[in-house]
Amino acid sequence: MYRTKTCGELRVANVGANVTLAGWVQRVRRMGGMTFVDLRDRYGITQLVFNQDKDAILCDKANKLGREFVIQAVGIVGERSNKNVHIPTGDIEIIVSEMLVLNSAATPPFTIEDDTDGGDDLRMKFRYLDLRRQLVRANLELRHRMTAEVRNYLGGEGFIEVETPMLISSTPEGARDFVVPSRMNPGQFYALPQSPQTFKQLLMVSGFDRYFQIVKCFRDEDLRADRQPEFTQIDCEMSFVQQDDVLCMFEGMTKHLFSSLLNIEFSEPFPRMTWADAMKFYGCDKPDIRFGMRIAEVPPELVRGHGFAPFDGAEYVGGICVEGAAGYTRKQIDGLADFVKRPQIGAKGLIYARVEADGSVKSSVDKFYSADILLRIKDLFGARPGDLILILYGDDAMKTRKQLSELRLEMGGQLGLRDKNSFACLWVVDFPLLEWSEADGRYYAMHHPFTSPKPEDIHLLDSDPGAVSANAYDMVINGVEVGGGSIRIHDSDLQQKMFRMLGFSDDQALARFGFLTNAFKYGAPPHGGIAYGLDRFVSLFAGLDSIRDCIAFPKNTSGRDVMIDAPSAIDASQLEELHLSITAK
Amino acid sequence: MYRTKTCGELRVANVGANVTLAGWVQRVRRMGGMTFVDLRDRYGITQLVFNQDKDAILCDKANKLGREFVIQAVGIVGERSNKNVHIPTGDIEIIVSEMLVLNSAATPPFTIEDDTDGGDDLRMKFRYLDLRRQLVRANLELRHRMTAEVRNYLGGEGFIEVETPMLISSTPEGARDFVVPSRMNPGQFYALPQSPQTFKQLLMVSGFDRYFQIVKCFRDEDLRADRQPEFTQIDCEMSFVQQDDVLCMFEGMTKHLFSSLLNIEFSEPFPRMTWADAMKFYGCDKPDIRFGMRIAEVPPELVRGHGFAPFDGAEYVGGICVEGAAGYTRKQIDGLADFVKRPQIGAKGLIYARVEADGSVKSSVDKFYSADILLRIKDLFGARPGDLILILYGDDAMKTRKQLSELRLEMGGQLGLRDKNSFACLWVVDFPLLEWSEADGRYYAMHHPFTSPKPEDIHLLDSDPGAVSANAYDMVINGVEVGGGSIRIHDSDLQQKMFRMLGFSDDQALARFGFLTNAFKYGAPPHGGIAYGLDRFVSLFAGLDSIRDCIAFPKNTSGRDVMIDAPSAIDASQLEELHLSITAK
Repeated sequence: MYRTKTCGELRVANVGANVTLAGWVQRVRRMGGMTFVDLRDRYGITQLVFNQDKDAILCDKANKLGREFVIQAVGIVGERSNKNVHIPTGDIEIIVSEMLVLNSAATPPFTIEDDTDGGDDLRMKFRYLDLRRQLVRANLELRHRMTAEVRNYLGGEGFIEVETPMLISSTPEGARDFVVPSRMNPGQFYALPQSPQTFKQLLMVSGFDRYFQIVKCFRDEDLRADRQPEFTQIDCEMSFVQQDDVLCMFEGMTKHLFSSLLNIEFSEPFPRMTWADAMKFYGCDKPDIRFGMRIAEVPPELVRGHGFAPFDGAEYVGGICVEGAAGYTRKQIDGLADFVKRPQIGAKGLIYARVEADGSVKSSVDKFYSADILLRIKDLFGARPGDLILILYGDDAMKTRKQLSELRLEMGGQLGLRDKNSFACLWVVDFPLLEWSEADGRYYAMHHPFTSPKPEDIHLLDSDPGAVSANAYDMVINGVEVGGGSIRIHDSDLQQKMFRMLGFSDDQALARFGFLTNAFKYGAPPHGGIAYGLDRFVSLFAGLDSIRDCIAFPKNTSGRDVMIDAPSAIDASQLEELHLSITAK
Repeated sequence: MYRTKTCGELRVANVGANVTLAGWVQRVRRMGGMTFVDLRDRYGITQLVFNQDKDAILCDKANKLGREFVIQAVGIVGERSNKNVHIPTGDIEIIVSEMLVLNSAATPPFTIEDDTDGGDDLRMKFRYLDLRRQLVRANLELRHRMTAEVRNYLGGEGFIEVETPMLISSTPEGARDFVVPSRMNPGQFYALPQSPQTFKQLLMVSGFDRYFQIVKCFRDEDLRADRQPEFTQIDCEMSFVQQDDVLCMFEGMTKHLFSSLLNIEFSEPFPRMTWADAMKFYGCDKPDIRFGMRIAEVPPELVRGHGFAPFDGAEYVGGICVEGAAGYTRKQIDGLADFVKRPQIGAKGLIYARVEADGSVKSSVDKFYSADILLRIKDLFGARPGDLILILYGDDAMKTRKQLSELRLEMGGQLGLRDKNSFACLWVVDFPLLEWSEADGRYYAMHHPFTSPKPEDIHLLDSDPGAVSANAYDMVINGVEVGGGSIRIHDSDLQQKMFRMLGFSDDQALARFGFLTNAFKYGAPPHGGIAYGLDRFVSLFAGLDSIRDCIAFPKNTSGRDVMIDAPSAIDASQLEELHLSITAK
């Protein structure tokens, strides 16, 4: 070893000890005849001291050290006269007697500090330097601890971690696959898994009973701001369970993570909300319930026929009551109107109503509506003096609800109701099984084709497929969907019916999923599971805005790793071996 | 839950309890008016009892159960009169009062028993049924426990598990890459990692200090019997270490695994052997030291010029002394001669010499050599009465040594010296840095291009590259290389020199590895590491002949998953999106 101690462990109790440290030069300061070097490693920072009077040659050597030089220093631990209370090693320093430069360093392109001067692109290109920053490393340390605690919890509950294959077959349902040409099977391709879904179900057929895996998955999608082509799932499956068993098990895991990683104890069960309620009261299927501000609906007949054209033509009128925001200025409200009218949100206009101190209502539509109607609207929202009511309207209830959801989140943010250090967990349950695509004229599985309908709804599959609820559930924390799952179909006939509903011919279904439906014929147990997006889960715990900051080597929105410059061209001979040619110019 | 207890947990103490079990029907037996059903789950087997007299309808239902039906049974725990001492639940049975068939099962294509009647191909096609067999599941349970204990140990030693990317760049050195076409970057490809080597080195540059990862790696090689295109590594790296630090850390891990998984304690340090000694005395770089039988060399001058042409023309003569094997018959020895002459081994002939009870030597070359010379040979081997000396010869010492290694392993096997339940661990150290390829007229890195030469040999890099030793090491257990690693180069100039020696132009090196050599310029610490092949490591612990048996869903030697039928053709539209066309007919 190049060291006897790390840069994070020496304390006053070690004063007098002879130690050897190794690490990176964070900073060199000269004061009078003294030179102070902050030496950094993963574990902390320790101050090294060189004295010009005592050893001029050594001190000169120290003066020549540059930022990020890698050095080894031998010396005696001394107590500092000028203590630094901000770091655990701030009470001591090393009076250096020997120093060796293990490696020099060019000046880094940005400062290795929490508050760096490096822009995003530069930090990604030199990610290995960005990772030296304590803030970034702390995210990856949290990620490590989270996976360790997930394994502790699930291992303790009898789950077995089983590795499923990465080189599998392409399936047409769902997102686009990344494919891998097979040299040994010319013209054929493997696909990288979008999830180990079918394999974990096969493991249930195999009697593994409780399976989990922390596993890389892949989706070749056009990347939005916070998506990565490769991402990590905590993937779980259990046999002989009903929905409630799965929810209890993973509520337990989540509580364990909050407790062990953040010291936050949740004593109450997580609330459960149906998908229909989530949409009605929050306008989205992943409500942030750190704050109320639920959506209230205004019966169209109440506001129609008073000469206000927007409401006259609306199929849906609804809004939120923002507590204590009556003081919002005209300018602020105009800002909100601009916000909801942005193309990404697409509302037609924003109506507001202030509740005055005397209980009367002052609104942007006063000239159309009597005080009586305005008071009835106030009551619909349960608004009190000092509150601000914000109303949207539209032809389509679901679209308008989604707009209200955006407005609600914006108001929650403006009012400071979305504190990163406070956490509100929620189960959303009873999702619809199928989603109708107007464009394609067919149903799609809302989760995936293996999700079980609720037994009591199976009779509706033929007559009213859109009304069938699924045994599916999402875990939502602070408005983020961290996990989702379902009870699966374990009956081969029902599975076949489901494939038909999703537009697969029997031949297609057999070719793609025959191994699964076949497996179900040999004694499949009832089973269900859940998968968490680890990147998002860690980000949430770390209070990060982007998942990129908890991934060691992320890709940019073009799917490129700018550090290693991947993807890249390959040799002609490689292409030839793979029996491929490139058609792009 | 469909059950209150599992099929593995009920004991006499539970007699009288009302329980619900769920699982698979292993076997149905009728005796008199009773029906006995063995119900199986992951945790064990419990006997269910049905009584024709007490409940004829229920008993009839039980009689109709087929193998592998999935059922739920409610009943009272009773003490068995006829106990089964072979299973932990053998003292009890369930007097069933209610029974529900959760899923029926077609007759499986082979029996779900340790000693199954299913052939290899059938078992792989129906792997989900094969995995129901206790023997196979036990291997995967061991694999789970091994990874858990690896994480316990390394976590306790301050290692952080960091996920490195799966979609990286293709590198020409080493084995063939699997590549992944990038839709968003037409004509460009990602590669799947053969190992996270460069990324773990970058993490050391980033100051992560101690990294590990249990990670899938990929190699597109022509598959030999016991290779898989995707395999799992325990990948580790440490900073500020010398070779001895790495060996101690991972010797500790290995001892921890033996102790926690197999209850085997190794109190002594693992022996260390130089690569040169391994080749000289065992003929291979991964000697099985569960037994001695070391190779001894016969000086050519001792046996030349006596009219025995094979020795006259040989550059190398060497052999092994097989203790107590003088009784081998002529037929047995002919068998050994056939064995070494097989094309896979390629020896020209086998010479033998028996040491008789009186100490005299009787050999296949008696007519060429005097008793005196034969006695001197006997002494060279330290042979004693009753021993059998087996000698090979050839033009090339290394080739002949490898033949002797095969013969030695064969004899160890024949004599029962290679017991699967006994373990001998060994470090092989001081590998050559470079390997000369006669065919290509150039040097190749013996481990990989990042391995550090021994500092004392660096001056030989220009003058005598073949003589340079590497700071590289392998862990060998029972003749299996379970892990290998090295101290890495951390100096960008030395790394550049190494790339040149390996035939990379500076431009090529920059294009392929520029990010790494660049990173070294910003303060790289001395570092080194090791990687274990998890599949092989588990196989060894499980006493398996093939790594396939400890992989849930392995591929065959054509790289195919016969269960899901991967790889497969993909849609023309997928190819088009990827800007690719297939050139194979």
